[in-house]
Amino acid sequence: MNRARLDDRLADLETDGYLIDASQDDANQLYLSGFTGPDPFLTLYADGEIHVLVGGLEYGRAKKEATADAVERHADYDYEYGGREERNDMYAAFVRDKGVESVSMPPRGPVGTADALRERGVEVAVDADDRIREARAVKTDEEVDAIREAQRANEAAMRAAEELIAGADVAGEDVPADGEDDPADGEIEPGTLLHDGEPLTSERVTEEIEVTLLRHGCALDQTIVAGGAQAADPHDRGSGALRANEAIIIDIFPRSKATKYNADMTRTFCVGEPSERLREWYDLTERALDAALDAVEPGATGEDVHAAACEVYEDAGEPTFRTDPETETGFIHSTGHGVGLDVHESPRLASGGEELEPGHVITVEPGLYDPDVGGVRIEDIAVVTEEGYENFTEYPIEFVVG
Amino acid sequence: MNRARLDDRLADLETDGYLIDASQDDANQLYLSGFTGPDPFLTLYADGEIHVLVGGLEYGRAKKEATADAVERHADYDYEYGGREERNDMYAAFVRDKGVESVSMPPRGPVGTADALRERGVEVAVDADDRIREARAVKTDEEVDAIREAQRANEAAMRAAEELIAGADVAGEDVPADGEDDPADGEIEPGTLLHDGEPLTSERVTEEIEVTLLRHGCALDQTIVAGGAQAADPHDRGSGALRANEAIIIDIFPRSKATKYNADMTRTFCVGEPSERLREWYDLTERALDAALDAVEPGATGEDVHAAACEVYEDAGEPTFRTDPETETGFIHSTGHGVGLDVHESPRLASGGEELEPGHVITVEPGLYDPDVGGVRIEDIAVVTEEGYENFTEYPIEFVVG
Repeated sequence: MNRARLDDRLADLETDGYLIDASQDDANQLYLSGFTGPDPFLTLYADGEIHVLVGGLEYGRAKKEATADAVERHADYDYEYGGREERNDMYAAFVRDKGVESVSMPPRGPVGTADALRERGVEVAVDADDRIREARAVKTDEEVDAIREAQRANEAAMRAAEELIAGADVAGEDVPADGEDDPADGEIEPGTLLHDGEPLTSERVTEEIEVTLLRHGCALDQTIVAGGAQAADPHDRGSGALRANEAIIIDIFPRSKATKYNADMTRTFCVGEPSERLREWYDLTERALDAALDAVEPGATGEDVHAAACEVYEDAGEPTFRTDPETETGFIHSTGHGVGLDVHESPRLASGGEELEPGHVITVEPGLYDPDVGGVRIEDIAVVTEEGYENFTEYPIEFVVG
Repeated sequence: MNRARLDDRLADLETDGYLIDASQDDANQLYLSGFTGPDPFLTLYADGEIHVLVGGLEYGRAKKEATADAVERHADYDYEYGGREERNDMYAAFVRDKGVESVSMPPRGPVGTADALRERGVEVAVDADDRIREARAVKTDEEVDAIREAQRANEAAMRAAEELIAGADVAGEDVPADGEDDPADGEIEPGTLLHDGEPLTSERVTEEIEVTLLRHGCALDQTIVAGGAQAADPHDRGSGALRANEAIIIDIFPRSKATKYNADMTRTFCVGEPSERLREWYDLTERALDAALDAVEPGATGEDVHAAACEVYEDAGEPTFRTDPETETGFIHSTGHGVGLDVHESPRLASGGEELEPGHVITVEPGLYDPDVGGVRIEDIAVVTEEGYENFTEYPIEFVVG
């Protein structure tokens, strides 16, 4: 955590303090408290100090683990497994104990706690800017190293997936004269990728990716292995048999179990002969990636980087949201996003995207989509530096495999 | 989903509708919308109908997948990647479009959305009872089957863990006369469990559990593999080398990737010779489990079931929260909890726990803890039936393994 930056971002609050009520699943909470509590707990920033309040069962671990300045437990406020009203009384007492009569809460903080504090005379304002999220966007060297380490696990998982796909047989090829050994006999359609004689499915590749991530100390959120028309929907996670000659998008975003930081990378593969159109798309997307990366430097905005990717596509006649906000084909998402404790966080590389600063860790991920053609996306992860950027993706960019 | 029960729970709202703003990570949202949206989206219950509002990229999938009665997209409210105020305007328009001027939100709904709707004249009340959570507590047969299926994966993972532990060598045993082949040579302390000549760690066992869960279609949240003094802290996930003669608690709570329903089970193992005290604890805990299960039937309360477990311990002179609310050793947690889309949900088997109903899926998990002795916990998962309960845990209860 960059404490100076956090203090700076919270310096001009119009309230006495900043309150988070969430479990470790909330990245703001994890950042501010430094504690992996599985159940919701309170963290209060007031007078430059960070105070955590947890239940008795978590107290020992929180005292050891939390990076907060002070850890208290429910018993300090004479609360012992009481009802909802007693719990809210404790929350108000905890806040007031720090001399705080008004707090800011992030937009996604719980309305139940906000209203309960209001009923008890504590003023609650919504921090619409989500300042802790903004503070999180700029990483320390230690945070960048944590993301880099998760990216190494990511690359091991991508390699396992690529090997499975590149090593696949194709049903209907090499059919012997008598046809008897044709693996496409029965239910398997010609062109289907085969692994050990069985159709190679998105689910099988996903399993291989996720097992590899676990073996490398990462947990997983969701993985995308989508081929053919499925790949044309950027949110489709993919299912069923994969096929030759189609583009297969693999998007992996693991989270380190130890550090809780994420990585993110996408590659697109094809076994066999992609269509001319898919080849053009792949080349264009690689150029869009390079153009966007070239635009990354301190002072450039996320909008600038997005524009650089859009221009490559627009010059080639492909639709983007800039040329047609209603389009359902072409480049239909933003160019990238910040990565940290959340896999999607600030800054945004999109229309309206903010100015880039050294320490921003970002993805750059242009892509083209059309259900009649398929989908192509290439995504690298990089950190903005004083001079420009450092791309810490070490995975090759190669379309046709196998 | 039991729609009749849901309608019943929402019938006496004092507001016109019930609003959820959350991603699929929120179990209430997943239940009400039936949609696995990765980003927060709105679901409104009004006049007995469930309406979902998603962005354009999610619209196709939401229309196919959501169990809601109607799916709309942002473009239906002329919203296209605008700012925060425009988004909140859209939310208010979506609500008003259904004739709704006042909504209830769950206690953990986002205060940002609640306050933005209030600013736009929509009344927002906090549903302190968390009615959708309450509705979720009673499962349909289909939901019970989903949990049962996750439990089968859980048992496969437990078996993999048990085999790893039971198959371990013990450092310092079988030392040959010249001592040269003693695996305890060097850094390894005598008594350490060994796998392939290396210390068997909590992390290694956890990895085996998690890989097995993945191979069985389950994702994982967190797994506990804690031995010795670590096992005495019910929230310690465990780390480092496991040892002979100590109690090793393994608590696994997987989530089916397909259905999103969880299972939950704990076993305690020992390689070698447990102390007399640990043996007594294990027998007591098995008796507490039986006594608690015997108390499970419709009409009994969660408090009754908890009392049945407590009495076994108290009769044996072990402290519980009932005899000493401040105790840090003994039976220091509740007897169990509901399991469903959340791994911890209603009902609570604890002081103040509510009346049990057929369809409640619950854990029963008594345990004893003391850093000087270790920890023992045994946890089964069962469904409350008209007649009593059905325990659908098929894993044996056995302490000494290997």
